[in-house]
Amino acid sequence: MSPLKEKIHEVLFEADTKAGKIVDIGLMVLIILSVIAVMLESINTIAIDYEEFFFVLEVVFTVIFTIEYLLRIFALQKPWRYMTSFYGIIDLMAILPTYLMWLLPVYQTKYLIVIRALRLLRIFRVLKLAKFLSEGNIIIAAMRASLAKITVFLVFVILLALIFGSLLYVVESNEDSGFTSIPRSVYWAIVTITTVGYGYIAPQSPFGQLLAALIMLLGYAVLAVPTGIVTMELTNANKNKDINTQACKDCGRDGHDDDADFCKFCGGEIT
Amino acid sequence: MSPLKEKIHEVLFEADTKAGKIVDIGLMVLIILSVIAVMLESINTIAIDYEEFFFVLEVVFTVIFTIEYLLRIFALQKPWRYMTSFYGIIDLMAILPTYLMWLLPVYQTKYLIVIRALRLLRIFRVLKLAKFLSEGNIIIAAMRASLAKITVFLVFVILLALIFGSLLYVVESNEDSGFTSIPRSVYWAIVTITTVGYGYIAPQSPFGQLLAALIMLLGYAVLAVPTGIVTMELTNANKNKDINTQACKDCGRDGHDDDADFCKFCGGEIT
Amino acid sequence: MSPLKEKIHEVLFEADTKAGKIVDIGLMVLIILSVIAVMLESINTIAIDYEEFFFVLEVVFTVIFTIEYLLRIFALQKPWRYMTSFYGIIDLMAILPTYLMWLLPVYQTKYLIVIRALRLLRIFRVLKLAKFLSEGNIIIAAMRASLAKITVFLVFVILLALIFGSLLYVVESNEDSGFTSIPRSVYWAIVTITTVGYGYIAPQSPFGQLLAALIMLLGYAVLAVPTGIVTMELTNANKNKDINTQACKDCGRDGHDDDADFCKFCGGEIT
Amino acid sequence: MSPLKEKIHEVLFEADTKAGKIVDIGLMVLIILSVIAVMLESINTIAIDYEEFFFVLEVVFTVIFTIEYLLRIFALQKPWRYMTSFYGIIDLMAILPTYLMWLLPVYQTKYLIVIRALRLLRIFRVLKLAKFLSEGNIIIAAMRASLAKITVFLVFVILLALIFGSLLYVVESNEDSGFTSIPRSVYWAIVTITTVGYGYIAPQSPFGQLLAALIMLLGYAVLAVPTGIVTMELTNANKNKDINTQACKDCGRDGHDDDADFCKFCGGEIT
Repeated sequence: MSPLKEKIHEVLFEADTKAGKIVDIGLMVLIILSVIAVMLESINTIAIDYEEFFFVLEVVFTVIFTIEYLLRIFALQKPWRYMTSFYGIIDLMAILPTYLMWLLPVYQTKYLIVIRALRLLRIFRVLKLAKFLSEGNIIIAAMRASLAKITVFLVFVILLALIFGSLLYVVESNEDSGFTSIPRSVYWAIVTITTVGYGYIAPQSPFGQLLAALIMLLGYAVLAVPTGIVTMELTNANKNKDINTQACKDCGRDGHDDDADFCKFCGGEIT
Repeated sequence: MSPLKEKIHEVLFEADTKAGKIVDIGLMVLIILSVIAVMLESINTIAIDYEEFFFVLEVVFTVIFTIEYLLRIFALQKPWRYMTSFYGIIDLMAILPTYLMWLLPVYQTKYLIVIRALRLLRIFRVLKLAKFLSEGNIIIAAMRASLAKITVFLVFVILLALIFGSLLYVVESNEDSGFTSIPRSVYWAIVTITTVGYGYIAPQSPFGQLLAALIMLLGYAVLAVPTGIVTMELTNANKNKDINTQACKDCGRDGHDDDADFCKFCGGEIT
Repeated sequence: MSPLKEKIHEVLFEADTKAGKIVDIGLMVLIILSVIAVMLESINTIAIDYEEFFFVLEVVFTVIFTIEYLLRIFALQKPWRYMTSFYGIIDLMAILPTYLMWLLPVYQTKYLIVIRALRLLRIFRVLKLAKFLSEGNIIIAAMRASLAKITVFLVFVILLALIFGSLLYVVESNEDSGFTSIPRSVYWAIVTITTVGYGYIAPQSPFGQLLAALIMLLGYAVLAVPTGIVTMELTNANKNKDINTQACKDCGRDGHDDDADFCKFCGGEIT
Repeated sequence: MSPLKEKIHEVLFEADTKAGKIVDIGLMVLIILSVIAVMLESINTIAIDYEEFFFVLEVVFTVIFTIEYLLRIFALQKPWRYMTSFYGIIDLMAILPTYLMWLLPVYQTKYLIVIRALRLLRIFRVLKLAKFLSEGNIIIAAMRASLAKITVFLVFVILLALIFGSLLYVVESNEDSGFTSIPRSVYWAIVTITTVGYGYIAPQSPFGQLLAALIMLLGYAVLAVPTGIVTMELTNANKNKDINTQACKDCGRDGHDDDADFCKFCGGEIT
């Protein structure tokens, strides 16, 4: 590995050296600035006056991030592994929309560069926020453990939405209440079960309202299920983190607290 | 049992042989296609151009599912048990709406065939998604265990909605805020307690808004109850799954705690 | 106590004899009918055609419930205790609105008789739904145990609503977004924190929307608190119900399951 | 310390003497009255008729609270510590808006004096509501313990809102559905994930509704996470309160489990 490659690797991939830290934080600031720029650009009253300014800004940001992406690939022995990793894909998606803007006739695609905000997730690693990282891992572990249960649950919710949506479509077909097609009615059912409740599609007939009340009360009970699942898995994930797996040498029993020096069952010393 | 009957039984009711699996997955695909067809048919802009196409498609699907249903009945020794089972009723309801369409003057009933989407619940069994089945069972067990509590709770919510709905009807009777009758006001109360909040019925008078704020804060505390119940029961259901599966050698009963050294039923040592 | 009093007491206050049960169920049916009658009466299109019919019906129901109330007082040795009990007050409130209708010029007060629906809470006692009663008691016990926590919590939510409501009132004062006074803005804040979200009062200015987003995310975290409290207390209430308080006579340790015949720690018999 | 200072300190900072209690409760009543006055003043129909009355009232309240604030500073040895404490800042903020009203041209700032409602939090201390204080402490302890997890979680929610908001902005750019800029679309995404759902910004195109349904179902699962976190931490905080208060006779440390026979720190027997 050439010294140049090594130096680039150190600066871009590690946050332990001073140079690495400065580059990392500098990139974070650039990402935040570029996301704010895109958000401001989307506001009509601002966009009209500063159109060219935002265009130049966007080009500058994209050039910087493109150079960074190419350097990252250049600095690695096996660039393919990075390119197919979570952060590698995010890094690529963070520059693509600007180029697509020149290729495609739909200028709105450029707004998709806000996806580069996901790069900010690196902040926990860069700032060595170990506590937050570990907490994040507990949440992810609990989420992964509840995945199968949540999937079963979502299948159930979608079937419920499909059936109640169609029922409301049939019942409200003579009303002027927004149930103009089954897909739209299914959308209404999801809006209702999740208790979002926009209100621009809502039943007007007494029988439609009765059915809607039914699905709301059902959703009320149903809402409790994923909460219960995640609470249970979080408690498990947290317990596993805390529990000492050391067994007492005298009586062999485990399940001791982390701060235990002596076995709570026989009084033998734990080392 | 004739070999024909046996062959049909194997293909339609079992998913272990190759033929059975192909038929099962083929039926799933047909169900999904027919549900999508009905959803598209309900969209006005599409329906006008392809009216005949959708009609033919619907007839074809219904004929296939009718033949399947008849074959299922034919292949069984005791067809009545299947016909009154959960899946048997769903299978019948999946074809009825098309026939009703020809009998009844209300053409919208045909959209009720989306109920055949419920047949997709078989997917977990067909694809041998044992993990999902077992997770589903834990959820169902927790739901069943919380049924009595949830019922008591729903009775309470409905009484609350009845009383607050009537109060708001009285208070808002002089406003143009949608509280035109008690049933409609009760519907509003349910929309509010469940935090759906459509907004096309909403109090305008200061006193009405005070009462509404009260029911919201109540609903806020009340919302916590079913969640608490399901979490508790889920934790129980999950714990029971984890429980020591060791059976006592003396009396053969299981269900002992993990830290048990002696059988809690007969006193025999557990090793 | 005269035999007449005794007979009335048995029929009205006890549900063990056949006569008592018939009267109890008869009263329940009358209550449900009268609540349905009031609900129908409030619907304009129905009320116009059957005005006199509903008037007569209401008089009949009120006369029956008044006689019942007087008989209940007559049958008791210490009627005052009944009259100040929960059900005694409900029974009185169930007949008052009809009489108030004749005294007050506001005819809408009569709709308040739906409060007699609360009398239906007796159904669990009448039908000997012991399981539901016991489940109800667990919920009530958990609610009572969490009362202090929930109160602290509600004080916090109301202060939050007061401050954010006033902030939005100041910020949105130049917009046409419904924040016309502080009480109305506080009402908006409660609608938002509880995630009901009607939408007829909603911020239009960017800064107002930023503040609103802040209160929503706060409410999101805050919503978790009562749920956590109730879940915790429910788990406690349920645990206390299930745990066997019997200690082993040999080793003196307790915490045995309800179905344990032998001590799980030393193998001694539990009697 | 002069006797005058001591007397003032006793009356204003302690609630144990009769004089101290009277002053404390008197101040509470004044705070409530002044908050109600500001709320009434903000209602147009009332403000017009009583403009001068409210002005005089506000001046009187502010003078009283200013004198109180100055006395508090005067009575303390180290006033700076009080002035930078939570209650010290609240006490200052409770009088500032009235003075700002005379300095700034924006008269609405005066409504910010509702912030003095926060002073009411002292009520739990004044009324010696120890139970509520201790319950409040459990909630605060649980909140503090979940802070890191909730922060990670909020970062995740905001990134989700940023990306889905921009997606909807791109998808709904040709519709008249309120997605007029990215900041506004992000606001919509937060309104939707938190299930508030105002409905004055809502997707109209089929693809926009599909994306919205996706973010709702995601939010549905996501909503479960903070609830799970707080429930877990509350259970922990409560358990720590319940924990065996027995201290070891040998080493004097406590915090042992209920079923511990031996000190887990020094191995001494616990009796």
